[in-house]
Amino acid sequence: MLGRLNHVAIAVPDLEAAAAIYRDTLGANVSQPQALPEHGVTVVFVELPNTKVELLEPLGDDSPIAAYLQKNPSGGMHHLCYEVDDVIAARDRLQADGMRVLGDGEPKTGAHGKPVLFLHPKDFAGTLVELEQV
Amino acid sequence: MLGRLNHVAIAVPDLEAAAAIYRDTLGANVSQPQALPEHGVTVVFVELPNTKVELLEPLGDDSPIAAYLQKNPSGGMHHLCYEVDDVIAARDRLQADGMRVLGDGEPKTGAHGKPVLFLHPKDFAGTLVELEQV
Repeated sequence: MLGRLNHVAIAVPDLEAAAAIYRDTLGANVSQPQALPEHGVTVVFVELPNTKVELLEPLGDDSPIAAYLQKNPSGGMHHLCYEVDDVIAARDRLQADGMRVLGDGEPKTGAHGKPVLFLHPKDFAGTLVELEQV
Repeated sequence: MLGRLNHVAIAVPDLEAAAAIYRDTLGANVSQPQALPEHGVTVVFVELPNTKVELLEPLGDDSPIAAYLQKNPSGGMHHLCYEVDDVIAARDRLQADGMRVLGDGEPKTGAHGKPVLFLHPKDFAGTLVELEQV
């Protein structure tokens, strides 16, 4: 079921500073910041040869990463996104195994315009997991 | 400077349970557990098409992930490992930029038999970063 690691998301308090570390200090290709108001974040993509790191900064008053940054003011790894062929089939199989899907269980449109679901971290070794249909 | 994402490491309190989630529930290829006493962990490799997830369980009395699991009893993402061509050149460049290398600054032999260094999480957006020479 599990495909590629699409990205690792890192929540950061200062997107410009985090992007500069990856661009200038680590020498990676880094995108321009993109505001995604419907997701409550501004994102910078760090392009690696085999996957991406997404640097996320809160945007607006109701950002889904605000609580994480209150607990982790320096930032930190927020979630892993794995690719799947069929997010509905994946959901049904996971729920049949007793795994919890966050929200109402219906896929939303993710930051890349693809259907995504999030899984409960307590069911996945303490890691918030996003599944993205590709 | 930054090459592939070699792996994402997840510290877990119960390696057998975490491996079962990735193998049976998520349908990934998962290695047998490997005890690495010199690193204070037992590791299971989850093979993804483009990278690896390493599930780490403490081994012995002085495991480098014991403190993390005390703070995060359900487990969680512990570090990211990026590949570099030359870990000494990378270290020198990072230190010249004021970044902190953990330990005595000399590379150690990592879990894959390659030279590795760890970088201070406060200098990298709250993320513990391993550099592995490949």
